[in-house]
Amino acid sequence: MRAEQVQRAREETPGCADVVHLNNAGSALPPAVVTDTVVDYLRHEALTGGYEAAAEAQERVDGVYASVARLLNADSADIALTDNATRSWQAIFYALDFRPGDKILTCRAEYASNAIAYLQSGAEIVVVDDDESGQLDVADLKRRIDGSVKLISISHVPTQGGLVNPAEEVGEVARQAGIPYLLDACQSAGQLDLDVTKLKCDALSGTGRKYLRGPRGTGFLYVHPRLRESLEPATLDLHSAAWTAPDSYEVVKSAKRFEVWERSFGLVLGLGAAVDYALELGLPAIEARVTDLAARLRSELSELPKVTVHDVGRRKCGIVTFSVAGVPAAEVKQRLAAAKINTSVSSRGSAQYDFTGRDLPDLVRASVHYYNTEAEIQSLVTEISTGVLSTRS
Amino acid sequence: MRAEQVQRAREETPGCADVVHLNNAGSALPPAVVTDTVVDYLRHEALTGGYEAAAEAQERVDGVYASVARLLNADSADIALTDNATRSWQAIFYALDFRPGDKILTCRAEYASNAIAYLQSGAEIVVVDDDESGQLDVADLKRRIDGSVKLISISHVPTQGGLVNPAEEVGEVARQAGIPYLLDACQSAGQLDLDVTKLKCDALSGTGRKYLRGPRGTGFLYVHPRLRESLEPATLDLHSAAWTAPDSYEVVKSAKRFEVWERSFGLVLGLGAAVDYALELGLPAIEARVTDLAARLRSELSELPKVTVHDVGRRKCGIVTFSVAGVPAAEVKQRLAAAKINTSVSSRGSAQYDFTGRDLPDLVRASVHYYNTEAEIQSLVTEISTGVLSTRS
Repeated sequence: MRAEQVQRAREETPGCADVVHLNNAGSALPPAVVTDTVVDYLRHEALTGGYEAAAEAQERVDGVYASVARLLNADSADIALTDNATRSWQAIFYALDFRPGDKILTCRAEYASNAIAYLQSGAEIVVVDDDESGQLDVADLKRRIDGSVKLISISHVPTQGGLVNPAEEVGEVARQAGIPYLLDACQSAGQLDLDVTKLKCDALSGTGRKYLRGPRGTGFLYVHPRLRESLEPATLDLHSAAWTAPDSYEVVKSAKRFEVWERSFGLVLGLGAAVDYALELGLPAIEARVTDLAARLRSELSELPKVTVHDVGRRKCGIVTFSVAGVPAAEVKQRLAAAKINTSVSSRGSAQYDFTGRDLPDLVRASVHYYNTEAEIQSLVTEISTGVLSTRS
Repeated sequence: MRAEQVQRAREETPGCADVVHLNNAGSALPPAVVTDTVVDYLRHEALTGGYEAAAEAQERVDGVYASVARLLNADSADIALTDNATRSWQAIFYALDFRPGDKILTCRAEYASNAIAYLQSGAEIVVVDDDESGQLDVADLKRRIDGSVKLISISHVPTQGGLVNPAEEVGEVARQAGIPYLLDACQSAGQLDLDVTKLKCDALSGTGRKYLRGPRGTGFLYVHPRLRESLEPATLDLHSAAWTAPDSYEVVKSAKRFEVWERSFGLVLGLGAAVDYALELGLPAIEARVTDLAARLRSELSELPKVTVHDVGRRKCGIVTFSVAGVPAAEVKQRLAAAKINTSVSSRGSAQYDFTGRDLPDLVRASVHYYNTEAEIQSLVTEISTGVLSTRS
């Protein structure tokens, strides 16, 4: 990404003037066009009526499906829009009918919400080993495949680190074995260049608020027609199905079968603006810059005494996690916040397999985006070395 | 409601200057404070970060639960906030475990989304008769109670008419029989004075966008502790449950067990502003004015040739449905829209039992709110008599 593109992105991001935002894996700062799109729609809706405004905006709303489809190299009919990534993920997971003896294959880095759902399903949970780099071991995955595996379900990028799991290789294994593959792309969409034909996933869930820089309260779901048509949603309403006669209903054919009728069209259009903004910059360019900035941050942090960087995996993304010996993560976060540097804390409850397996303490998570600058990265490092560490020594 | 209160409400509602909004059962015009609350929050979030703004707003968000609780005469712990009424309703319905032979008792006026879910559940659906007035016949309900009834589930006010079902009497029957009672208050919340201790419902679902005048994409759920604690949600995430160890989770005790973690806090605060606005005016006063305006509209429409009003029931609310002989409802709606009068169309697919039972055509739905005026009511009537009817005669 050219320096002037970064500069323009910053100028188009009101929050950049106020804070050093390194919490993009939590919720990124939106570009002005995203907030303006939502606000303008809400103002118009207030003047004209909620249904009336939605009817007028129908083509723009259709365009959001097209934009998300373009982001993922999918068809519009494969896209559902939801209120968050968890709903998107749940729409697929809870539609599957797990019976005693069924197995779910997942990864060590798996996210809490997904793992809780696995536990609730009653299926047997098989946590695939990591390889020596700390990413999912594809060879171990292959060894675990048998006739009772009902689902392969992994997080592409975990909430607690820079790891990028080998999602394409996993897709190849799943495709060969004919097992449905659900990919949680909540942390990867918007920072990595995703292509469902390469990922070979049957379903992919994502959120608006993180690396896509969209509004909170938005999510999306991709579902391959093959999985979609074989899967009756776990819940239905008059949007996902038609009440065709007093005693019958008909589920719609497109991925909208996994949606609910009512939503905020302001937020939907805001999501569309965010996706278009990312597409305009280009996901390959975004990925390159995010990866580069994060590598720089990891390298600088590694050189500080008492600081340990905890990111694993052969390939890494924009999330950087670290701990400071003798200083709890919550306190580090607070000290940084006082200097107007936003970070977050990852803890055991969000990723039990990984935290327990690596016996990790709470981690400080600094997640960079392309609109962050080298100077911002440096300000975090300086604050740690001259602030957090000096007052503790 | 005093005339000056109506006048002030109109001044505080930007849309009143633009349209005659008689689509309040679709989505009402919000007061300025609702839109401003959402917009101000979104602007602040864009400057400070989505998680950072939410942390700051924690007390205000808690206050929204308290406001919704006050609206329903419930405890805050009994309230869940969702993205729409359907989700609220589904959170309870799909948590129930229906087995072959189980019965669901419902009403003729039932809403499509609920009925589709009944059909999907595989339970036996028993549609309770209406009495001669057209409301649910409580005597027939009593007769239908037996040991296989797993749920009593009705719409308080249907989408397709002014009927107010006798929800309190139904609650008394349910309580006596010890059967869970799920009340769909999507169309009644905000126009009728609701009290869950009088309704004796175990769960009640509602939306923000309709008579409460809140943002689209907001909903709420009341669940009595008795039902709540016996009911594991159909879906879980790290907000509704904690991942306590690699192989165990713990569902939270409050009604938040039926929520999902991620949401738009801007919309949540907007919902709170809408509820507070309604509470400030007072639900009894709102109910009186809405009921009175709708009665006036029904009376005026009844006097027009070729116009038939279709509302039934002993007690009626703010929704008025009618048809014009020889003019399809969609055309009537369009003619009214051209005169800047917003209405909507109710059709068979949204209420099969009722449309089939009464053999109804598509209906024009004009739903009034307290901020509508007698002059606006008159403008609809005039447009029908001088516009729609004259050009067709």
